Amino acid sequence: MFRPAVRRCARPFTTSFRQGRAARSYASASHPAFDWEDPLASKSLLTEDELAISETAERYCQERMLPRVLEAYRNENYDAKILSEMGELGLLGSNLEGYGCAGVSTVASGLITRAVERVDSGYRSGMSVQSSLVMGGIHEFGTDEQKQKFLPEMAKGKMLGCFGLTEPNHGSDPGSMETTARPHPTKKGYLVLNGAKTWITNSPIADVLMVWAKFHETGKIRGFLVERKDCPAGTLETPAIKNKNGLRASITGMIQMDNCPVPEANMFPDVEGLSGPFTCLNSARYGIALGTMGALEDCIARTRAYALERRQFKNNPIAKYQLVQKKLADAVTDAAYGTLAAIQVGRLKDEGKATPEMISMIKRQNCDRALSNARVLQEVFGGNAVSDEYGIGRHVANLFVTQTYEGQSDIHSLILGRAITGLQAFV
Amino acid sequence: MFRPAVRRCARPFTTSFRQGRAARSYASASHPAFDWEDPLASKSLLTEDELAISETAERYCQERMLPRVLEAYRNENYDAKILSEMGELGLLGSNLEGYGCAGVSTVASGLITRAVERVDSGYRSGMSVQSSLVMGGIHEFGTDEQKQKFLPEMAKGKMLGCFGLTEPNHGSDPGSMETTARPHPTKKGYLVLNGAKTWITNSPIADVLMVWAKFHETGKIRGFLVERKDCPAGTLETPAIKNKNGLRASITGMIQMDNCPVPEANMFPDVEGLSGPFTCLNSARYGIALGTMGALEDCIARTRAYALERRQFKNNPIAKYQLVQKKLADAVTDAAYGTLAAIQVGRLKDEGKATPEMISMIKRQNCDRALSNARVLQEVFGGNAVSDEYGIGRHVANLFVTQTYEGQSDIHSLILGRAITGLQAFV
Amino acid sequence: MFRPAVRRCARPFTTSFRQGRAARSYASASHPAFDWEDPLASKSLLTEDELAISETAERYCQERMLPRVLEAYRNENYDAKILSEMGELGLLGSNLEGYGCAGVSTVASGLITRAVERVDSGYRSGMSVQSSLVMGGIHEFGTDEQKQKFLPEMAKGKMLGCFGLTEPNHGSDPGSMETTARPHPTKKGYLVLNGAKTWITNSPIADVLMVWAKFHETGKIRGFLVERKDCPAGTLETPAIKNKNGLRASITGMIQMDNCPVPEANMFPDVEGLSGPFTCLNSARYGIALGTMGALEDCIARTRAYALERRQFKNNPIAKYQLVQKKLADAVTDAAYGTLAAIQVGRLKDEGKATPEMISMIKRQNCDRALSNARVLQEVFGGNAVSDEYGIGRHVANLFVTQTYEGQSDIHSLILGRAITGLQAFV
Amino acid sequence: MFRPAVRRCARPFTTSFRQGRAARSYASASHPAFDWEDPLASKSLLTEDELAISETAERYCQERMLPRVLEAYRNENYDAKILSEMGELGLLGSNLEGYGCAGVSTVASGLITRAVERVDSGYRSGMSVQSSLVMGGIHEFGTDEQKQKFLPEMAKGKMLGCFGLTEPNHGSDPGSMETTARPHPTKKGYLVLNGAKTWITNSPIADVLMVWAKFHETGKIRGFLVERKDCPAGTLETPAIKNKNGLRASITGMIQMDNCPVPEANMFPDVEGLSGPFTCLNSARYGIALGTMGALEDCIARTRAYALERRQFKNNPIAKYQLVQKKLADAVTDAAYGTLAAIQVGRLKDEGKATPEMISMIKRQNCDRALSNARVLQEVFGGNAVSDEYGIGRHVANLFVTQTYEGQSDIHSLILGRAITGLQAFV
Repeated sequence: MFRPAVRRCARPFTTSFRQGRAARSYASASHPAFDWEDPLASKSLLTEDELAISETAERYCQERMLPRVLEAYRNENYDAKILSEMGELGLLGSNLEGYGCAGVSTVASGLITRAVERVDSGYRSGMSVQSSLVMGGIHEFGTDEQKQKFLPEMAKGKMLGCFGLTEPNHGSDPGSMETTARPHPTKKGYLVLNGAKTWITNSPIADVLMVWAKFHETGKIRGFLVERKDCPAGTLETPAIKNKNGLRASITGMIQMDNCPVPEANMFPDVEGLSGPFTCLNSARYGIALGTMGALEDCIARTRAYALERRQFKNNPIAKYQLVQKKLADAVTDAAYGTLAAIQVGRLKDEGKATPEMISMIKRQNCDRALSNARVLQEVFGGNAVSDEYGIGRHVANLFVTQTYEGQSDIHSLILGRAITGLQAFV
Repeated sequence: MFRPAVRRCARPFTTSFRQGRAARSYASASHPAFDWEDPLASKSLLTEDELAISETAERYCQERMLPRVLEAYRNENYDAKILSEMGELGLLGSNLEGYGCAGVSTVASGLITRAVERVDSGYRSGMSVQSSLVMGGIHEFGTDEQKQKFLPEMAKGKMLGCFGLTEPNHGSDPGSMETTARPHPTKKGYLVLNGAKTWITNSPIADVLMVWAKFHETGKIRGFLVERKDCPAGTLETPAIKNKNGLRASITGMIQMDNCPVPEANMFPDVEGLSGPFTCLNSARYGIALGTMGALEDCIARTRAYALERRQFKNNPIAKYQLVQKKLADAVTDAAYGTLAAIQVGRLKDEGKATPEMISMIKRQNCDRALSNARVLQEVFGGNAVSDEYGIGRHVANLFVTQTYEGQSDIHSLILGRAITGLQAFV
Repeated sequence: MFRPAVRRCARPFTTSFRQGRAARSYASASHPAFDWEDPLASKSLLTEDELAISETAERYCQERMLPRVLEAYRNENYDAKILSEMGELGLLGSNLEGYGCAGVSTVASGLITRAVERVDSGYRSGMSVQSSLVMGGIHEFGTDEQKQKFLPEMAKGKMLGCFGLTEPNHGSDPGSMETTARPHPTKKGYLVLNGAKTWITNSPIADVLMVWAKFHETGKIRGFLVERKDCPAGTLETPAIKNKNGLRASITGMIQMDNCPVPEANMFPDVEGLSGPFTCLNSARYGIALGTMGALEDCIARTRAYALERRQFKNNPIAKYQLVQKKLADAVTDAAYGTLAAIQVGRLKDEGKATPEMISMIKRQNCDRALSNARVLQEVFGGNAVSDEYGIGRHVANLFVTQTYEGQSDIHSLILGRAITGLQAFV
Repeated sequence: MFRPAVRRCARPFTTSFRQGRAARSYASASHPAFDWEDPLASKSLLTEDELAISETAERYCQERMLPRVLEAYRNENYDAKILSEMGELGLLGSNLEGYGCAGVSTVASGLITRAVERVDSGYRSGMSVQSSLVMGGIHEFGTDEQKQKFLPEMAKGKMLGCFGLTEPNHGSDPGSMETTARPHPTKKGYLVLNGAKTWITNSPIADVLMVWAKFHETGKIRGFLVERKDCPAGTLETPAIKNKNGLRASITGMIQMDNCPVPEANMFPDVEGLSGPFTCLNSARYGIALGTMGALEDCIARTRAYALERRQFKNNPIAKYQLVQKKLADAVTDAAYGTLAAIQVGRLKDEGKATPEMISMIKRQNCDRALSNARVLQEVFGGNAVSDEYGIGRHVANLFVTQTYEGQSDIHSLILGRAITGLQAFV
């Protein structure tokens, strides 16, 4: 069940990005009014529960997260408390059933990512890893013991996870990974992991690391839950990677394993090959598709507010200029379209009718359009865009990263191309 | 043979787009398959009636229209029989209630335009004028006598209509029109119309011409139903405009009125100003938004087929090349997104929740994306694209026109910009 | 009247593009004026001879060609007299030395193509085939006898040529051609050609057909000059291809050879493989690069004139709108840049320093930018764009074809990519 | 005279970004080779002096600047020693005549900015301010005393300048500035300046601040040279602006003047209105146009090297993929075109034939294309792009700022639009 706190949300949340909206007097009783914040009325597609969840998440994000993000981004300081706060609100692993998870719809879970990413894609990344990649993976592939052990604590945000797939030499092509799992030379019932993973969100702070490695018996990829507390000194290192161009409010690192022991009981029992990690990624990618719409919407709101306030040439607000209005119209359109597409795929997912290619499509398109429009909107700020106080430059930098991770857009193009033509063009 | 007619159907809303949460079974053994012709499963949003109507329309269009279009386009010959055939199938004015109209949902009527435009935008234009602009206008603004007189015959395609708004000097800005309606100097109960309208689809073959003119008493715009059979010689001319760059399978002309008499009973009783013609256009624009997706889908299907068959360089089908796959992936994505957006607005329209800006948004975006993708897909045909037999050049030429009529895209950008900012940028 | 002929002129290089430093006087009282027709003063890079040649060509094209093009395009009627008129003015094969050719600079020859393409890309295509592909090829690869026999008559436009490389199944990849040259079964000193060529500009009216075929002895590609007058009935057919989407003012056809006899003396003596046809294409592509700038400039001039005259919304010329001005600014910029690049490559060509990749670069970029800008400019005409009388739709349709022939842009991208990376990506 | 050190440059410089270039074996003796680093042989347009100056600047920048930039950018630490080093090499105010300046051609000075911006746009900004805005302004508008006093020291980089035009509320529209110059209430021969300037590169470290203010007598804009050492405490503050999204290797600040006294002798004698600052900006914008080509070229070199080294899918270097090659081909083309255009305008400038609109054109286009291509190239780095060690993210962030300062691209579009149409569209 979703927690009671979530439902107690009578007071409508008002947040900085929503301020400055003029009273809509053109909304007479008879005519419905155009709402630039939801131009194609996507809200009409949501259940009451979903609306309530969305509102709770938005309120938390605007009131509690937003004030932290500027400093976090400047200094690359991720505040891990955020995950426990989200856990308290029931926002982690929210679409999973049982084990202390709320069991909400896929769309509802996407609305949470949208609320978080409206603040910052890095915060959303931190949550996606916990919720979709790690909790989702355990829920999908874990034994009941594994689920019992990890999920309730993770749902509360008291145990943090990370997801180790990408390696220094293998990004778009994880099937070529070099990390191995072999029998422990001395300890029965144990395997040892060797190899290195990189660009791993949350790895420096993770308690449990889901690591994908090639299994000694079969050469096939299997998944392992590495518990940091059980790793002897020198077998596991998770150095942070600093000086990032984007997602600076999230924490990223490596996973270096040197004969790192892991009990056989911490291996996923059945899943083999790339279908394991790809299933996890699929779920995370869904969250990105709806999440990036939040970032884009925040860019729109910030640009609109700036353009209405900023005056140039005969004291006109620059929002009056055709070139500015076109940028806004384009962005608002793409946000509206992307939201509808993500809702549709969420519904299909819950019905068991979604395919991985659908996820590729909305992940690619929504990241691309969010990035592209955010860049264009940034132009409206002129020289002021260079100041991080306006926030839009942070979104632009973040959105570029969302376009490259969990499947760079070109890779998704070729996944779609293969589905359309039946022909493989990766080589 | 086709179904006799579109059945009357209530406007039930599909459920899946709107459901909250549902049982998830995405780990089931049988995986759903990706369908490049409907990548985001928009079909799941349609009622059974809508699917049946769509199928009927598609079958008619592919079997009966398609074989005629190449010659029609080459020679600028519009076959007016098409409208009577469509009338027999119940496809004209299909979303209107009563007066011999089928009363289907807005989405269903859009699926019909999509089926027609999959063949040719010119054929769809001919139908849109009859269904949305003229029949829709009469249904919305006409007296009961006017409705009784015109709608049943028009629904059968036995009486043809055209819509006279645009003038030679007033396209994007119809409020400046010069056509006037003054009292008839001698004939009581009659007015005379003077002025010229241009780029009027169907004007040379129309039996009834809906003409918008400035009314003598008020200077405000009013609508008139001019019946050709009742016009004395020399008062009404409707010369065809030939040598068009696009929409050559439709017939276009002028309306020249020289003291053209029209009975007061043929004036719309209440509607005044631009809200009359704009309401009609709104309805037609909805049809264009879904219609152009049909044209784009046809471009995709033709390109895909060509790319799978055409072999270059070591006998590889060119569909295997990354640059070709990306073009297809982009087009398929835009078709899927545009279809969802149009369905959503159709649902809102039937619920009375659609705003004109929503229509501006989907008309603009779907025309723009259809055109842009069609042009890129055309590149796949290489030198062969220059031959009209491949059909795609025809779509490209047509889609450019759809982008410019019923509100050129820049105008819709400024309509959206005004709605977003509250500021007028038309100058 | 026009100058009798282009004078023979040495290839002097202009100085200003190459000068080091010069006295600066930019603070002088008399400010130089911006010229939208030559925004970066490319004229300053031309010699007096080149300016004179350009002027002669422009005057002929505007006064004699332009009045014919509308009907020619509508009806797909190519007036072959145009080539003899151009011959009289010395505009054919103008950059070749000797044999009755003018021997002007490469840039001068490009200025001629620009003048012609300012009227119509189809007319330019007809000239390019005669001048660059056929005369150029004979001049480069022919024996002295072949040159003496063909070039003087061709320079006068009294003998017409065509260039047969592309086959129905082999466009981008001509190396896979199927046309063969084998010893004549009975006639000594003769070969027979078998095969079909398609999309051959001028083939239906050509007197001499330069055909590329695989040679019996080596399997390598060789070039042959087929003289129509000497071909027995049934051995050579050149049916016209009608109903084209673009280049309708040029004539296009096939070449069908069924044991078509050709004397050994009509084979090029030395050139073997694709270097023969590619050398010819290189020369023609240069002409396209500068030629398409003429078409783009004409689009700019037409759009500017229309936008200054057309008034909407409070009687403002639409040229006053920001969205219109941006379209013009973009187009003018690309025209200016493309012109400079083409001049530079022309200079390098005359110095023996041009590489095929340079030609790929300017052919691709100038065609792409001309097409892209022409399409955007066409939007300014709104609904009127559909009328062929405004001319811009014709340019748009033509420019699409220039993008696909003589190396579709994607092919040139991969040629450039190969030159940049050293890796082949054609698969 | 240019300093001797500049000429002693026998050893060809090899730098990191040029490494990894394979031996060009395809460059046989007879055929010229394609050079991806200078695809249209722009070098052939340069004098020997210009080539030598370029080489000196490139060597200095690669050997001395490049090692500093990563830390400088990370920590927003501008090393002011760079300007004195450049002064020693004669690179400051290089195109000015006399007063210790080298008096090289405009193109040569642009080659210097290109060399600097190949390392970092922020370093180039720091130099542009010193050279073009301040030294250029003094040279153009100063009295001989002013020139004698400031230029020699500034040329050596021992005295630093900044340029104060933009105000917090007046960016694109400086004519509305609020800063004033009024007679000093007590001190004869002195004026007092009041107002604030923002986004002023180098202001926190400047010794001399060129400030534009509205003059008491006329209300017209005049220019003043404020010497920091002479300002009483509390009359001049120049706080740095930190936490920038781009140009972090340059130092930026405000200028706050509170009754700041300035002697009348420090006012420019004749220039009045916006023509003063606009002339300075024109010169700086020229440097940006060629400078940004350096940044783009560095992005190309870095991307090419990465793509040749990075292997994915069957161990192929990703440089072999069509989608990667197209990105490179596009970028290389735009770099080549932009370079030619900038050289042409440089030549015209020295001949007194350049117009401000030409500068607008090349500033806008080269910034836009550099930014756009840099962003696309960044995609090639996939997830690794987020690391600042690859450098390309820094260029992307910098280039966005170059697009917005010294005339945001939309403003230059409207300047061009006005020149093309004769109509003003700013309001």
